Amino acid sequence: MIGRLNHIAIAVPDLDRAAAKYRDDLGAHVSAPQALPEHGVTVVFVDTGNTKVELLEPLGDESPVVGFLAKNPDGGMHHMCFEVPDIMAAAKQLQAAGARVLGDGQPKIGAHGLPVLFLHPKDFCGTLIELEESGKD
Amino acid sequence: MIGRLNHIAIAVPDLDRAAAKYRDDLGAHVSAPQALPEHGVTVVFVDTGNTKVELLEPLGDESPVVGFLAKNPDGGMHHMCFEVPDIMAAAKQLQAAGARVLGDGQPKIGAHGLPVLFLHPKDFCGTLIELEESGKD
Repeated sequence: MIGRLNHIAIAVPDLDRAAAKYRDDLGAHVSAPQALPEHGVTVVFVDTGNTKVELLEPLGDESPVVGFLAKNPDGGMHHMCFEVPDIMAAAKQLQAAGARVLGDGQPKIGAHGLPVLFLHPKDFCGTLIELEESGKD
Repeated sequence: MIGRLNHIAIAVPDLDRAAAKYRDDLGAHVSAPQALPEHGVTVVFVDTGNTKVELLEPLGDESPVVGFLAKNPDGGMHHMCFEVPDIMAAAKQLQAAGARVLGDGQPKIGAHGLPVLFLHPKDFCGTLIELEESGKD
């Protein structure tokens, strides 16, 4: 079912500083910041050639990463995102296997304009997994 | 400097159970377990096409992931590994930028038989970063 690792997301307390670390110290290509108010984050993408690292900074008090940063003030790995060809088929299959889809169980539109959903970390070894519909078989 | 994301590593309390989750629930291709006593872990690799997820279970009481699992009993994202063309050049450049290399600062031989080293999480947004020499420019 899961295909490519689309990205791994890292929550950071200071996006400018984190972007500079990846660009200047690690010599990576880092995109311009992109505010996603509907997701409560500002993001930059680090291009590794085969996949991306998404650096996330909270945007607004309702940001879903505020609690994570309260527990991990330096930042840390927040979630990883896999591509699936058909997100509704994936959700149905995972729910039948006993996995929980977060929220109301329905996909939302993610940072790339494609349907996404999140799986409960307790069902996957303590790891928050995002699925993104690739539209490809 | 950094190139491809070689893998993202997830520490798990029960490798057989974690491998079954990825194979049966997420439908991924999972390798046979490989014991790496010199690193204190047993691993399987999940192939995502563009990169790999490495599931790590402690091997022996001196395992470097025992402490991590004490804090994260369900498991969790442990480190990510980037390829670099020349690991000694990378270490020198990072140390000049103020980053700390863990241990004695010298590369060790990693799970793929190539030189690896780890960077201090405090210097990279709370994330443990492994560098692996790819031998390619």
